[in-house]
Amino acid sequence: MIRTGIIGGTGYTGAELIRLLLEHPQAELARLTSRRNAGRPVGEVFPHFAGKTDLVFSEALDDAAELDAVFVAAPNGVAMEDAPALLEAGVKVIDLSADFRIKDAAVWERWYGQKHACPERLPEAVYGLPELHRDLIKEARLIANPGCYPTSVILGCAPLLKAGLIDPGLLIADSKSGVSGAGRGAQTHLLSAEVDGNFMAYGVSGHRHFPEIAQCLDGLVDGAVGLSFTPHLVPMTRGIFSTLYFKTDETLETLHRAMADAWKDEPFVAVLNAGGHPKTRTVRGTNECQIAVHKTDGGVGKVLSVIDNLLKGASGQALQNMNLMFGLDETAGLEGRVALYP
Amino acid sequence: MIRTGIIGGTGYTGAELIRLLLEHPQAELARLTSRRNAGRPVGEVFPHFAGKTDLVFSEALDDAAELDAVFVAAPNGVAMEDAPALLEAGVKVIDLSADFRIKDAAVWERWYGQKHACPERLPEAVYGLPELHRDLIKEARLIANPGCYPTSVILGCAPLLKAGLIDPGLLIADSKSGVSGAGRGAQTHLLSAEVDGNFMAYGVSGHRHFPEIAQCLDGLVDGAVGLSFTPHLVPMTRGIFSTLYFKTDETLETLHRAMADAWKDEPFVAVLNAGGHPKTRTVRGTNECQIAVHKTDGGVGKVLSVIDNLLKGASGQALQNMNLMFGLDETAGLEGRVALYP
Amino acid sequence: MIRTGIIGGTGYTGAELIRLLLEHPQAELARLTSRRNAGRPVGEVFPHFAGKTDLVFSEALDDAAELDAVFVAAPNGVAMEDAPALLEAGVKVIDLSADFRIKDAAVWERWYGQKHACPERLPEAVYGLPELHRDLIKEARLIANPGCYPTSVILGCAPLLKAGLIDPGLLIADSKSGVSGAGRGAQTHLLSAEVDGNFMAYGVSGHRHFPEIAQCLDGLVDGAVGLSFTPHLVPMTRGIFSTLYFKTDETLETLHRAMADAWKDEPFVAVLNAGGHPKTRTVRGTNECQIAVHKTDGGVGKVLSVIDNLLKGASGQALQNMNLMFGLDETAGLEGRVALYP
Amino acid sequence: MIRTGIIGGTGYTGAELIRLLLEHPQAELARLTSRRNAGRPVGEVFPHFAGKTDLVFSEALDDAAELDAVFVAAPNGVAMEDAPALLEAGVKVIDLSADFRIKDAAVWERWYGQKHACPERLPEAVYGLPELHRDLIKEARLIANPGCYPTSVILGCAPLLKAGLIDPGLLIADSKSGVSGAGRGAQTHLLSAEVDGNFMAYGVSGHRHFPEIAQCLDGLVDGAVGLSFTPHLVPMTRGIFSTLYFKTDETLETLHRAMADAWKDEPFVAVLNAGGHPKTRTVRGTNECQIAVHKTDGGVGKVLSVIDNLLKGASGQALQNMNLMFGLDETAGLEGRVALYP
Repeated sequence: MIRTGIIGGTGYTGAELIRLLLEHPQAELARLTSRRNAGRPVGEVFPHFAGKTDLVFSEALDDAAELDAVFVAAPNGVAMEDAPALLEAGVKVIDLSADFRIKDAAVWERWYGQKHACPERLPEAVYGLPELHRDLIKEARLIANPGCYPTSVILGCAPLLKAGLIDPGLLIADSKSGVSGAGRGAQTHLLSAEVDGNFMAYGVSGHRHFPEIAQCLDGLVDGAVGLSFTPHLVPMTRGIFSTLYFKTDETLETLHRAMADAWKDEPFVAVLNAGGHPKTRTVRGTNECQIAVHKTDGGVGKVLSVIDNLLKGASGQALQNMNLMFGLDETAGLEGRVALYP
Repeated sequence: MIRTGIIGGTGYTGAELIRLLLEHPQAELARLTSRRNAGRPVGEVFPHFAGKTDLVFSEALDDAAELDAVFVAAPNGVAMEDAPALLEAGVKVIDLSADFRIKDAAVWERWYGQKHACPERLPEAVYGLPELHRDLIKEARLIANPGCYPTSVILGCAPLLKAGLIDPGLLIADSKSGVSGAGRGAQTHLLSAEVDGNFMAYGVSGHRHFPEIAQCLDGLVDGAVGLSFTPHLVPMTRGIFSTLYFKTDETLETLHRAMADAWKDEPFVAVLNAGGHPKTRTVRGTNECQIAVHKTDGGVGKVLSVIDNLLKGASGQALQNMNLMFGLDETAGLEGRVALYP
Repeated sequence: MIRTGIIGGTGYTGAELIRLLLEHPQAELARLTSRRNAGRPVGEVFPHFAGKTDLVFSEALDDAAELDAVFVAAPNGVAMEDAPALLEAGVKVIDLSADFRIKDAAVWERWYGQKHACPERLPEAVYGLPELHRDLIKEARLIANPGCYPTSVILGCAPLLKAGLIDPGLLIADSKSGVSGAGRGAQTHLLSAEVDGNFMAYGVSGHRHFPEIAQCLDGLVDGAVGLSFTPHLVPMTRGIFSTLYFKTDETLETLHRAMADAWKDEPFVAVLNAGGHPKTRTVRGTNECQIAVHKTDGGVGKVLSVIDNLLKGASGQALQNMNLMFGLDETAGLEGRVALYP
Repeated sequence: MIRTGIIGGTGYTGAELIRLLLEHPQAELARLTSRRNAGRPVGEVFPHFAGKTDLVFSEALDDAAELDAVFVAAPNGVAMEDAPALLEAGVKVIDLSADFRIKDAAVWERWYGQKHACPERLPEAVYGLPELHRDLIKEARLIANPGCYPTSVILGCAPLLKAGLIDPGLLIADSKSGVSGAGRGAQTHLLSAEVDGNFMAYGVSGHRHFPEIAQCLDGLVDGAVGLSFTPHLVPMTRGIFSTLYFKTDETLETLHRAMADAWKDEPFVAVLNAGGHPKTRTVRGTNECQIAVHKTDGGVGKVLSVIDNLLKGASGQALQNMNLMFGLDETAGLEGRVALYP
């Protein structure tokens, strides 16, 4: 049994980690922290866990060295403070925040507006996208768990970029997210009365997931990808839908075939029929990414890529990474989930 | 007092026309038809009109010649059957369906899958986008009222295309619409339990609004615009949000200035500050289009364009056209509307 | 032109007051305060007002004596501090908070958990429900504007209680409200991700609107009404729906007739046919209360009573009171509103 | 392995049965029918099942005799036609429709407006509420699976009625349901644009679940319970929330204790602390019923009772019944489910 802990267990990704770990056959959740809720039972803070666990939030991870792995589900800035001691104690760290995602500390500091506390660990941090970095993840001690938008965008175009089938000069990623992606912090613009019936873009002139996506895509081609990324907020709770646009001379069949072949052995990526229409609710509550390739007249190709932002876009992927790091079946605790419908 | 009638008054655009006409200072709604609800009072079919009007749905527009104008809010295919007789009787026709939007009957027939019943009237039909065709509208007898997606897309890029500030070779329009745009017909995929929490694209490989947008944009430049259009369904009731992407060498300031100057005298187009963030709810229930221009590194410009699909995207614009056709103040019955918030 | 001011203009009732006053033919909004947004234009804080007003939030109501009326749309506790000076300066005060609703200061202090700062003004405060207290309101200088739940409940049963048609020993009011009734404060449980798909009761063992309803109903009969009140939160933005239950020996016809007769001249109360089914959206954005009476076997009568919590339940009723206090047409600025549909 | 079939697998209860059976450790879904979708794979009709099952909808249940149990998830009227042959073939039948719920065929015919095709089977049909009829269910061949409203209401008051702690003369059940309870049929009033932001009551003067609840409650006391039942539609997808009101001389402690004791060994009923506040989302996707008892001044007691209408209110309870009928662990395939949050 893998013994795990969670730092920052009261946000949405933390709550989802608790759920997934409670249902995991080979891992257990031993401890979890919350500054605000220290001392309170998990089942009291989150009524849907009442009767499902006796765990109590604690101020800090006592005796962390007894743990095998720690998930950091806290806001940006916490993991880079806490990771060094954990790593030195032999605990593997899976960071769901952005602290270790950008290799260049200067770039990170510019986008995140703070000094990086632990740049010396950046080189060993592995960007935890199993479909691209599976072997590295298996050996990793420190995982930078990808952002939700990046996961949907990268899975939707990596095979086409790697195979040189599309023009890397312009890749437009128009992404839409449910509000749970914005977290559980009490902010006026996230109130139900504000979100209801309201669709909007945000961070149009620059969003923190831009450098993360760009760093990964640039690594797939010779030179820089001409990425343009726009996030939008959808009046719904879960789900990310990314619509990708690119120029290509290839046929739909060629594009679709390349995508389908690249992901055909992936347990959590499903490529629909060419011209298919994935929906956010089809993957809600699952770790699956669904992808469909389209091509219209005029040399423009499109890819639709859909995930649940809290599963494949955060906590599910974190668990997938944990499985790989500890030599478990990659799908343990994640497979067979069927979306709640309706 | 302009005397008006509505053919097909029981859909969402019909209901919105009723509301707008009831509140119009210089027009009155004299008659309206509904095959299914013939004989029933409007206030019974739509409880929010109870006590506001004594009108009763009729089977057909009796004595249509006594009317000054007729709005056709019926499904595609009705207006092209009914318009000729109305026009001959001297009644002006504002068609909210797609029947007269495409100048080339062969193109229309290919996209709409039926024979056009009235191709001889296509030449005189005016595409009723006041911001582009105001003078023609004033003289028109037959208006093809623009589609909701086309209105948001065209208003968001026409000034930039006309001024030659952007590369016409590629214009990507990623549009998102609330479900009222799909109409009031009882279809399973529009049920609340299906739509709730579900974001999806549809018609990705080809949507009927594509030729309509393309026809209008092509008319603005020398040659064809490289349009790529993708509609999406948002789990909300009203509103369209179009995100446009294009290549440009111009600065944000230049782009924004061109947009702001072009629309500065328009009563129903508001250009926000450069880099602004419009939202669908800000224009809900109003005839306004809100636009913001963005530019990021790498030569990609973006425009965000937002309307209420039932107002500026349908019935509001129809009324704006009526005002112009009858020499009324263009804003009569439409101005001063403040969105319901929250 | 009545010159008005608003204390606390950045909540939902404040925003609704701004909208209503901007559209009022005989009143103008001269000043409004906001501690947090002092110095910012209204159109910047609330984008839907951009271009509609040049007003700027100020720290305090300077030169309040120049105003004719002040609306207090601030949290409980503010009006009882500010009202005395305003009244002494000859300014009429319409308080949308609960400060002056309960006649017995001791009762108020028990339910609201604070000392009442101005008990000496309680006797002259008029509970501003025009349908019951129209004559008093006309003479009033200080209005305690009713709560949203109380408005829906009292209008739904007052005629039956006054006429002695129902057993006052037990009156069950099961009320459901949209989330805008909980205000615009940033609280975790009001986040979209928390509210979405979630129906719940709250304050089941005691809610502050209980003594307010009870005080009013007790005044209608000889002795106390056996009121039981339960508020619920509905995952929607606007609207209150109260379902009332009571024992009665009267027929549906008698009950319905009494209700219809009592409210037949009221401009903002519509009694539907006996056995009718009002809906929250039918009155959304209007000042209307819609009521339907039902009777089933077994001696139990039911009343359904529906309002928009921000109009007839708050700001609309406040304006109705202002109209009465200044001798204007009671419906000025409120009549003719048609609900936005869909 | 129990071999099961579903008649009418394309509604919401059918889809939920498929999900539960796919995940059941000791039962398998062998066949399922759909008149409209005969010949189509389940994964095509319901994309969330793609890759999870190879089953194909068939016109009829061929070789039904090879099955151990059949669930009827079709509209009312189908089970009473199909059940006799299945029972004669030795197949156990669990009917999720209303066909066998009312013991008196004349009463059934009055409320359901059709002739009962199989009154001779009514006596042996067991009303499948395990918490009340566990022993009968174990021996049953034909189960009338309870309605969603009745399940929430009966579980919320049965212990108090049986113990004689409340006045049976008046029991008010104010129930609220998400729209999935109305089924997947394409009806205008269930469209997203109609439901969004709209709360309403329906069937106020008489709803088919009334005789079902009354029949069960009457069986718990000497004589008839004075039931008054009102269903409401909540703009959300899943969940039922029933608020019960009754007169009682007992203390909150006594009432709560009776409720908690009665259900303390039930695997799927959780009694919260006295004065607790259950929410529909806490049980979403689970087979759990959560109950809280309240008592306020004046002799009125309240019970809040919450279920997921598609699990404990339909398909989950059907599986619980199947488990009992075949001697399996009652919780097989149902236990350990944690609600999706947020």
